[in-house]
Amino acid sequence: MKNMDAFFHPQTAVVIGASNTKGTVGYTIFQNMKKAEIKKAIPVNPRHKTVQGKKSYASITEVDEHIDLAVIAVPSKAVPQALEECMAKKTKAAIIISAGFSEVGERKNTQKIGELIRKNPGTLVMGPNCVGVLNAHNGVDTTFFERTRSTEPKKGTLAFISQSGALGSMILDWVGTQRIGVSKFASYGNAMGVDEADLIEYFGNDRETKVITVYIEGAKHGRKFYTVAKKVSRKKPIIVLKGGKHEQTRAAAASHTGSLAGASKVYEAVFSQAGIIQADDLLDLFSMAKLMEQEPLPKGKRVQIITNGGGFGIIAADQVIAGGLGLAKLSRKTVRKLKTRMPRAIISNPIDLLGDADHKMYDAAIRACMDDKNVDIIVTLFLFTLPTLDAGKLALVKKPKTRITKPVIAIAVGSEYTKKYLKKIEKAGFTTFNYPSVAARALRGMALYSEYLGKS
Amino acid sequence: MKNMDAFFHPQTAVVIGASNTKGTVGYTIFQNMKKAEIKKAIPVNPRHKTVQGKKSYASITEVDEHIDLAVIAVPSKAVPQALEECMAKKTKAAIIISAGFSEVGERKNTQKIGELIRKNPGTLVMGPNCVGVLNAHNGVDTTFFERTRSTEPKKGTLAFISQSGALGSMILDWVGTQRIGVSKFASYGNAMGVDEADLIEYFGNDRETKVITVYIEGAKHGRKFYTVAKKVSRKKPIIVLKGGKHEQTRAAAASHTGSLAGASKVYEAVFSQAGIIQADDLLDLFSMAKLMEQEPLPKGKRVQIITNGGGFGIIAADQVIAGGLGLAKLSRKTVRKLKTRMPRAIISNPIDLLGDADHKMYDAAIRACMDDKNVDIIVTLFLFTLPTLDAGKLALVKKPKTRITKPVIAIAVGSEYTKKYLKKIEKAGFTTFNYPSVAARALRGMALYSEYLGKS
Repeated sequence: MKNMDAFFHPQTAVVIGASNTKGTVGYTIFQNMKKAEIKKAIPVNPRHKTVQGKKSYASITEVDEHIDLAVIAVPSKAVPQALEECMAKKTKAAIIISAGFSEVGERKNTQKIGELIRKNPGTLVMGPNCVGVLNAHNGVDTTFFERTRSTEPKKGTLAFISQSGALGSMILDWVGTQRIGVSKFASYGNAMGVDEADLIEYFGNDRETKVITVYIEGAKHGRKFYTVAKKVSRKKPIIVLKGGKHEQTRAAAASHTGSLAGASKVYEAVFSQAGIIQADDLLDLFSMAKLMEQEPLPKGKRVQIITNGGGFGIIAADQVIAGGLGLAKLSRKTVRKLKTRMPRAIISNPIDLLGDADHKMYDAAIRACMDDKNVDIIVTLFLFTLPTLDAGKLALVKKPKTRITKPVIAIAVGSEYTKKYLKKIEKAGFTTFNYPSVAARALRGMALYSEYLGKS
Repeated sequence: MKNMDAFFHPQTAVVIGASNTKGTVGYTIFQNMKKAEIKKAIPVNPRHKTVQGKKSYASITEVDEHIDLAVIAVPSKAVPQALEECMAKKTKAAIIISAGFSEVGERKNTQKIGELIRKNPGTLVMGPNCVGVLNAHNGVDTTFFERTRSTEPKKGTLAFISQSGALGSMILDWVGTQRIGVSKFASYGNAMGVDEADLIEYFGNDRETKVITVYIEGAKHGRKFYTVAKKVSRKKPIIVLKGGKHEQTRAAAASHTGSLAGASKVYEAVFSQAGIIQADDLLDLFSMAKLMEQEPLPKGKRVQIITNGGGFGIIAADQVIAGGLGLAKLSRKTVRKLKTRMPRAIISNPIDLLGDADHKMYDAAIRACMDDKNVDIIVTLFLFTLPTLDAGKLALVKKPKTRITKPVIAIAVGSEYTKKYLKKIEKAGFTTFNYPSVAARALRGMALYSEYLGKS
């Protein structure tokens, strides 16, 4: 296993190609690294005496300190020499941001880099053609995304690995709008050194990471990927979105990251045997990432729906079934208890509390389902706009006092008033969705993962 | 065909059960009707001399004026007499808001109402157990939704028919957050008189309605529904979300609206033969409703993707294929033209303008696809956060000067900056989505509808 601490927890870092010109990649990366909570960030640029107020060096070899991390952001033809110097200096890790190699059919410099990597295993290399890493907890950040246009992700426990740098920027921006936060991010580009399997393994052992999400077009080394994923998925969930699923899109993937996107069916089989949760689209990836942060895992696939809108309940029940989950059948005891408590409500699946339901009825129904052994997952639907529901008093909003032994999620869609209460429920620790179909697919992923852990 | 103008364009209306007590159904409905742009709204309530400042009558029979619309909001056992009096008064239309009939197994009053309807075809009846109608253009509104909790829908061209009243409130609230607006809404409840087919037929001839959306659990009269839908779908799109698709959810539908939700396969066949666009979930219903407001329809299913993010493009291409659409193959002329214009970009499908694309490259690519006969639909993907893209200058934002002869949509997801530009693109008349999978399903619905129109 590669020790990749130098990428995410360097004490000393140089930025080769650090710049004084705002808007350039070399400027942004050095600006980020200067702000990181590390011992020292050093600019390397032979054309300047100082960069952003710090003494600049002509080469990494001239720096006195030992270097943990070198970020290389120079024109492609200057990359081999810069990398060679990093290796001569015994730098622990190097990220090659620069593009213009195998992904555009370049051979000479690509080959040189390959040789350097083979001959110097003491220096771990990420890239080329990548945006590198981000550690939300210590501010280490080699990405060069335009911060005025995106939301900074909060510190959290979601790790994200992306073959595609641009997609990474999108996902970090999205996370910024969510309850959840990021632990670490890595975009590894052409994967000449470090690949997705190394990152999965590293994040598997990372205490700050609870859920690992991956965008991948093709695994660099199939067998290694499988072995690592199978090991890590026992410890924490791995959610994978694979690009290039169809014959026609595999060609596009090949020209994008230079990787051969494998046949979809082969990947699907490998993923499912390795305990990987498969996302079908960005929407799935996002909703599964949110949901998998929530504890506990379900013990089975039997979903109980609770609603104050009959039609809404039926639509959700249809989606639960379509999503490969099952509808729970409440025990006779639960039915009796709830019928006594609320004689007009329809105690079935869905439990229809009817349009004049109040928060107490919701609380009682959730508690009863929590106690019922026939129920594995509780899905609450809310029409917050109905006048008798005082949503601020819901146990789901105030954080319930009873022990949460099963996944509980909430679904609602609407304007400001509805959004406000969805946010409060999220804050209390429950995942919320706008649409039953999206929730059902995410729950299915969660249930399959739980089933995998139980079986293997 | 039933002339249902009295429901949506009444000159005179009474509210039977109008109330002075805030928060009651009778209060809200009369408050709404007082504000409507109609000649006169009259309260009927024997217990009051005035209601909300207007002279109140003990019975509709005591009112001098001819009455177009009577809204009945009294306890269920008082409904038959109130309805009988409306009929005696030759009221053109009556909406029975009150519940407590067949949906709860009630027989006596249900039967009485049935007889009255049969004997008095001159009075059209909607309900019972419904929220009635809303006409966004003249303010006629018999719904009793809590307005402080929801957003008022804008005037627009989307009509919505819902067997479920609560679901209707959710959809009206959702529409309020969108670019599009509502023409008319109707929730017809137990459908003892007017049913979904009557409403589809009426909206089919309504000049203010461009797209008809329907939530249905079971069609009251299957043959009539089919005949009407087949006729109307030739004039405007009908999007249907059917609740109770599975064996287990049909029972819930039966207890919800008392209707027998038919077998899913039968419905699907009927829908497709009638030219109905089928939505799978609320998410589909919403996204299709948005998309179908946009013109023109596509001539085929060949989608060209344009992106500034390779991975994003591949994910979208996967979804286009999964959604049953095809990837367009650009003509040699288009490829040559674009290669000359932007030599580094990958001119294939997706067209990958690369991470440093600017607005001019997007504009040129869209124009070239508009001119290419091999392309039916143009899907643009945007990573707005990438620094070289000046989104405010995009033709899609400023409204393009070239003629739009094909559907163009945009997909992006992110925080405030991204949301701002999605809104601007919507304002320029192009539908936007956050996720490729959702866009692909909506586009598929649109393409199938277009195909249906071409064939039949």
